[in-house]
Amino acid sequence: MNVLVINCGSSSIKYKFFAMPEGKVLASGSVEKVGESESKSKQKSAAGEIVIEEPISDHSAGLAVIRRMLTDPEKGAIRDVSEIDACGHRVVHGAERYSDSVLIDEGVLEGIRACNDLAPLHNPPNLTGIRAAMELSPGLPQVACFDTAFHQTLPEKAFLYALPHEIYEKYRVRRYGFHGTSHRYVAKQAAEMLGVAPEKADLITCHLGNGCSMAAIKGGHSVDTSMGLTPLEGLVMGTRSGDIDPAIIFYLARKGFSVDDLDAMMNRKSGVLGLSEISNDIRTLCEQADGGNKKADLALDIFAYRVKKYIGSYLAVLNGCHAVVLTGGIGENSTAMRERILSGLDQIGLQFDAEKNQAMVGCGGAISKESSPIKILVVPTDEEVAIARDTYKLVSKEA
Amino acid sequence: MNVLVINCGSSSIKYKFFAMPEGKVLASGSVEKVGESESKSKQKSAAGEIVIEEPISDHSAGLAVIRRMLTDPEKGAIRDVSEIDACGHRVVHGAERYSDSVLIDEGVLEGIRACNDLAPLHNPPNLTGIRAAMELSPGLPQVACFDTAFHQTLPEKAFLYALPHEIYEKYRVRRYGFHGTSHRYVAKQAAEMLGVAPEKADLITCHLGNGCSMAAIKGGHSVDTSMGLTPLEGLVMGTRSGDIDPAIIFYLARKGFSVDDLDAMMNRKSGVLGLSEISNDIRTLCEQADGGNKKADLALDIFAYRVKKYIGSYLAVLNGCHAVVLTGGIGENSTAMRERILSGLDQIGLQFDAEKNQAMVGCGGAISKESSPIKILVVPTDEEVAIARDTYKLVSKEA
Repeated sequence: MNVLVINCGSSSIKYKFFAMPEGKVLASGSVEKVGESESKSKQKSAAGEIVIEEPISDHSAGLAVIRRMLTDPEKGAIRDVSEIDACGHRVVHGAERYSDSVLIDEGVLEGIRACNDLAPLHNPPNLTGIRAAMELSPGLPQVACFDTAFHQTLPEKAFLYALPHEIYEKYRVRRYGFHGTSHRYVAKQAAEMLGVAPEKADLITCHLGNGCSMAAIKGGHSVDTSMGLTPLEGLVMGTRSGDIDPAIIFYLARKGFSVDDLDAMMNRKSGVLGLSEISNDIRTLCEQADGGNKKADLALDIFAYRVKKYIGSYLAVLNGCHAVVLTGGIGENSTAMRERILSGLDQIGLQFDAEKNQAMVGCGGAISKESSPIKILVVPTDEEVAIARDTYKLVSKEA
Repeated sequence: MNVLVINCGSSSIKYKFFAMPEGKVLASGSVEKVGESESKSKQKSAAGEIVIEEPISDHSAGLAVIRRMLTDPEKGAIRDVSEIDACGHRVVHGAERYSDSVLIDEGVLEGIRACNDLAPLHNPPNLTGIRAAMELSPGLPQVACFDTAFHQTLPEKAFLYALPHEIYEKYRVRRYGFHGTSHRYVAKQAAEMLGVAPEKADLITCHLGNGCSMAAIKGGHSVDTSMGLTPLEGLVMGTRSGDIDPAIIFYLARKGFSVDDLDAMMNRKSGVLGLSEISNDIRTLCEQADGGNKKADLALDIFAYRVKKYIGSYLAVLNGCHAVVLTGGIGENSTAMRERILSGLDQIGLQFDAEKNQAMVGCGGAISKESSPIKILVVPTDEEVAIARDTYKLVSKEA
């Protein structure tokens, strides 16, 4: 069964095309600047690379180009669109409605639309992509995988904010959490690496990439996570502040900042970019810090310190655990950041191995000492294959 | 030396009168509803109780009544106001200006005034109280003790939010922390109880009262604390939310709430009151929870869960510690809340002793098992005596 996994943003479509159940990648690519005059589409497959530079008016046109590239006679992956057996879509917000991936029907489309309000930047383009895929290939099974689904196992004490109860009842304000597909995927991989049954694995997973979030996983289930109603809460990120005193907003509003100013500031001008005044990129900041830039060094310190605090916090939530798991671009590759985060935790059970750390780049394995009571693992994430697997499972069951 | 310790709120004055250096309380009392028609003044001393019900127009009049009660021929503590040797004042916000208590002069008055903006509800009445005391007793040494001072040792990585750097430079937005006098006092007491030199004590102190905050203390110095720019951040409190996703404010603002609505909601209608829809009082909620009320039970759970998470967080910050210290009305007296917070942490070094816990009410001592690697201590706080000591020390040095 060939599964096309699609991730639709407001002006881009990323995709990966899998042969399932093997999980073999047949092709992967992207369409950038949808709706602009300078759109660019790219694909890589075993047969070669394709680049198409032509205007792409909307997501439907984008998906048509993807089909064209997949079936390209020379450099494509398949001969005919009929060889696409199912589509899996990344959907950011499933609220309390979806605790697992689902086959899409009209009811699900309506369900996703009902969550637009909670993720106004993400769910509408996700939905546009799904509708375009459905129109282009009527009858093709489509599956939605929600970033929030894995965290639907959070207990009330972890998902409720200490606000008036009606704010939850009336406005659905609660902790939802994101990156669920990634946390779920690396938790399963980590359990295998540890030789622990997934349903018995207690883990702290750290997804450190463009966005950053952590999860406390008890017996394979997410019991707490750092992102909340939105992806702003929790860790320091490239351009997002993460946790702050909420009263800072009231204070700055009274200094003349509008709600929109503050929203934009905290989401797009904060994080390590705001602190360093240099870059949102951890690699760049590491170079700058090595070169003696103090603001870059401080930004990295603050990033690491927040992760460290959440590790401790989730150790208390779980009353100890098997391993701390690092993933995402930073978690998988930044040896310097991993060292900042994980050194100085030996008295609470994490014995970081600086040598192993240096060697573990772009691959998975332990970076803790043999004797470490709590293991530290690097596990490359693969959200697309996780979506492909869910799609395969749901479509096979249906058939 | 007799020291009068004064805590001026917007419509109340609380005081304690000490013989120093013994720290013996000669009298204590309060003036309530200053500026209203139904003011009430009370004092207790060894000689008896005084209650005065007469209108008190302002803080100067309030302090005059306090002097009258202190020198009451029958039930007072002294014969003449000349027996008051110094005044110590609680001041909420000293920003980055004050990292210790100081003798008040015109420069200090100006310094406190300069912090008004950061604590608009607290610093102005504190200042009014100081000015009234100075006018009433010209020449009497006056000392200011700041709630923020003890936390001025926080390193940058702990006090900076991940916001654009100019927000700190221009608007002084950073973590200040509060309850410093209490954290400092109980940390010192705890070190003595542990037989550890105060400058070597690594502690997590939990001040759980009307307001709630925690501090990570390394070698006697505060290195992190849960309250931030304002006392809203951190733990769940009686009516305050503590930590939330800051984007909740943006989300609710777009639903029609004003900044003032949200400020009032998060400071005065949230916390365990908002969650339970019953009360802001932990004792009441414990009774309700025992009686089967689920919302009360959940509110208590959420309160405890937040403290638990901060304990873990600070364990990571400190890389282990000697003891977790509980103080404040709830920390000193609520056996039920202590049990909710501290059970289930044995795998990270805290072995809670349920029996000792039951016995430890209104007194200080260990509530951890003998074998517990990290001790759990209850330490009654006494902010007034700490202020009296600072005042005594500064005034003695001056003399």
